Amino acid sequence: MSISLADYQTRNNRQLNLWLDSIPHQNQTLTKAMRYGLLLGGKRARPYLVYITGQMFGLTLEQLDTPASAIECIHAYSLIHDDLPAMDDDELRRGQPTCHIEFDEATAILTGDALQTLAFTILAEGSLATVSEPQRIQLIKELANASGSLGMCMGQSLDLEAENRLVSIEELEEIHRNKTGALIKCAIRMGAFCAGEKGIEVMPHLDRYAEAVGLAFQVQDDILDIISDTETLGKPQGSDQNLNKSTYPALLGLEGATQKAQDLLQEALQALQAVPYNTQSLEEFARYAVERSH
Amino acid sequence: MSISLADYQTRNNRQLNLWLDSIPHQNQTLTKAMRYGLLLGGKRARPYLVYITGQMFGLTLEQLDTPASAIECIHAYSLIHDDLPAMDDDELRRGQPTCHIEFDEATAILTGDALQTLAFTILAEGSLATVSEPQRIQLIKELANASGSLGMCMGQSLDLEAENRLVSIEELEEIHRNKTGALIKCAIRMGAFCAGEKGIEVMPHLDRYAEAVGLAFQVQDDILDIISDTETLGKPQGSDQNLNKSTYPALLGLEGATQKAQDLLQEALQALQAVPYNTQSLEEFARYAVERSH
Repeated sequence: MSISLADYQTRNNRQLNLWLDSIPHQNQTLTKAMRYGLLLGGKRARPYLVYITGQMFGLTLEQLDTPASAIECIHAYSLIHDDLPAMDDDELRRGQPTCHIEFDEATAILTGDALQTLAFTILAEGSLATVSEPQRIQLIKELANASGSLGMCMGQSLDLEAENRLVSIEELEEIHRNKTGALIKCAIRMGAFCAGEKGIEVMPHLDRYAEAVGLAFQVQDDILDIISDTETLGKPQGSDQNLNKSTYPALLGLEGATQKAQDLLQEALQALQAVPYNTQSLEEFARYAVERSH
Repeated sequence: MSISLADYQTRNNRQLNLWLDSIPHQNQTLTKAMRYGLLLGGKRARPYLVYITGQMFGLTLEQLDTPASAIECIHAYSLIHDDLPAMDDDELRRGQPTCHIEFDEATAILTGDALQTLAFTILAEGSLATVSEPQRIQLIKELANASGSLGMCMGQSLDLEAENRLVSIEELEEIHRNKTGALIKCAIRMGAFCAGEKGIEVMPHLDRYAEAVGLAFQVQDDILDIISDTETLGKPQGSDQNLNKSTYPALLGLEGATQKAQDLLQEALQALQAVPYNTQSLEEFARYAVERSH
């Protein structure tokens, strides 16, 4: 299963490069590490969701570049910090050395910090043709709420505390709703907010779609961690098991987890039925989330 | 030398506590560590500068709470990350165990991350009675530019690369202009931006003041690191020397560094002469920066 990510990836990379070019100290390790962390591979799923959601409402890609770039900075920073020795201690990411291996730990910490800041610089300064100033502030709120102690960081904290013990399926969903779900939902919400009233009207349906897809994406990640080999995955196979992390296959069995992913896919597709626009790209993304092999 | 920091500290702590109270997972380690990192001591110099600058233009403290709280979150996050083993490896801060000692490294990384995000949540959501939406966006830009790869993070990166070699006085100033100067300048600029046109008119003079005071603060920090004892300082005495960091006393001698601090104080006071408001609090802060004993 594949979707047309490539063109969007190229566009997003070009945008991110422009932002990095604006840093005065180009030869400084920090700048190099930011470029490394941002641009070396990656699916660009979150920018992709910003773009296809906005396009559904008739927006151009250009009108969506700013939130797409900002959310990828948040995602990239979170991966760099998650890979640190004190966190998941991963040496490979996307088939390449992780930031603290390629550079060093201090640089990786700082690089994540600076990429988080860059996300907010982009939202505050980036071109946003269709968006009023109150809407720009709304975008900043959305991204901050999805990233920090109300979203991604809290999910990571819940996840760390769940290591080495078996959690309930409810706890696991709470972890992933925050850790990965919040940012995926935010991508879709930002795409919709850029469309103004039209986007806000269908937000409840998009939220329902996003929550199902976000969780489905994670369930499939857990499944792939068990069934894929290291080369396909770009990170060591079974790395979740090594950390004694609770996963959907661990709680539900491989078959149960596969069924869970399918149920979530149906939930997502059903939510889209209430959206009176061309939802084909969002449908395809939902299928991709649960049918991809890496 | 002391200034009236106490009332402002209390006010700032109360504001920060309110923001922390709004996190849904109150019993989670992340929330506790955020409270620990934000509220355990600290001079609150940056919020203080926001307040006294805004007050100079006739603003009330209430009208300045939002930028004051936001900038303290950035400062607190930077201290937590700077103290990490991979960075300065400090076990004491403000006379208390640093965040990664009190909790653990993973929590300290996440706590810094979430406090940075909180700063932008506060600026995006916080009450800002005198401030229009474009001005609110300007405040977000200012804080992001002062914190990330154009400011504080870049300064920390330059500082790390300067360890174990003797840098020139120009390099040292470039480090500190970014590492500590950018955020001090930002505090004063945010206070002035909240006053609208009145603040913008005198911004060049305030910038000149802020640059001199920011550097003076650092020169005095370097001096105190040599002459104070651990108990007064709240961190191990001589910790800069142990890391082979270049300091003003190392480059200029203790007497030269003391003279440098005095020159900067004069520069700061001179800049204020062009500001047609009651600059007494800013004058006192400049004196405090170079005459304080901890």
